[in-house]
Amino acid sequence: MTESSGDQHAKHNARMKRVQAARAKMQARRTIERGLLIVHTGNGKGKSSSAFGMAIRSLGWGMKVAVVQYVKGSWETGEKNFFQANPDLLTFEVMGDGFTWDTQDRAQDIAAAKAAWERSKELIMNPEYDFIILDELNIVLRDDTLDIGEIAEFLKQRPLEKHICITGRNAKPELIEMADLVTEFEEVKHPFKAGFKAQKGVEY
Amino acid sequence: MTESSGDQHAKHNARMKRVQAARAKMQARRTIERGLLIVHTGNGKGKSSSAFGMAIRSLGWGMKVAVVQYVKGSWETGEKNFFQANPDLLTFEVMGDGFTWDTQDRAQDIAAAKAAWERSKELIMNPEYDFIILDELNIVLRDDTLDIGEIAEFLKQRPLEKHICITGRNAKPELIEMADLVTEFEEVKHPFKAGFKAQKGVEY
Repeated sequence: MTESSGDQHAKHNARMKRVQAARAKMQARRTIERGLLIVHTGNGKGKSSSAFGMAIRSLGWGMKVAVVQYVKGSWETGEKNFFQANPDLLTFEVMGDGFTWDTQDRAQDIAAAKAAWERSKELIMNPEYDFIILDELNIVLRDDTLDIGEIAEFLKQRPLEKHICITGRNAKPELIEMADLVTEFEEVKHPFKAGFKAQKGVEY
Repeated sequence: MTESSGDQHAKHNARMKRVQAARAKMQARRTIERGLLIVHTGNGKGKSSSAFGMAIRSLGWGMKVAVVQYVKGSWETGEKNFFQANPDLLTFEVMGDGFTWDTQDRAQDIAAAKAAWERSKELIMNPEYDFIILDELNIVLRDDTLDIGEIAEFLKQRPLEKHICITGRNAKPELIEMADLVTEFEEVKHPFKAGFKAQKGVEY
């Protein structure tokens, strides 16, 4: 970085003033306020952790948050440890029973997913909650463990005053179509491929 | 979803057993364990919230976490509210002073960014900390408010027992090159474009 002269600073500051004005104009056009249907998908890392980060943001505004985890039931995870050690913070329910390659029992997977979805509907309909995270729901939809038709139908009728965030790779097109905010998490570089083990705090 | 027959279930379960075996083999090849240099970049939403979610994971494992926010100083955010209301959880330092289009003072931006970087170096070198988040550092690097050369040089010598996560769009190629884990957050659908205001708990 070269030392900026006073001239360069004045130019920069004038440009920033124009950017600020343009942003103010843009923001004035954004008037809709209601709960968002959010989808985190893609093959990259960070879909669930980003949802947990939004939970922290929401808690910081005094909102009430619930998480339903669809597929990590049998694992010990940092988020499970944290939220179970701080039960006053939010409602955290682990309904799945590990990934299906651990259970190897499709009938049991379907039963667990159905129970998780019933609980999710209750939480979505409960006016106390402002933010609902359905973690890895996309995975059980992708595998047809739950039926996308039924879930899309329910979400169309959802109460619009709360946010719902659905995570997991391979989100169904029906869900992307109806969502307000969709981010694709794209893997650029992953430590697994360089021979790293899954790391505490990062992967789980 | 059609009712699965016993045959279909048996087939599924056998396939899952093969997947499980393949995964076990793959995991056995992953032997490296050390702190990761993580970069969250791209134009999509979720880069910072994903870092905060990893903070939650790390806290769940009893790790010590520090966050330095480079550019959100003057804003009220959910994460600031939450971490300041729960000061025992982690070290949270807000060093930036709003985005540059709010300050319109490049000299002040440079001074604030330099102070944030000095503090970041202390936290990285402090053996007490296991996870350091440098939130929106990419932005001040993109704008040459800080010099990528100096920062890359320091990061090459970093202590390898801790994770460092750097967020912000337009990550410098030098940083992507040296990182262990890079995710590109790609915007698929953003509510701003449909006329939504920034929503509490989601955007801030």
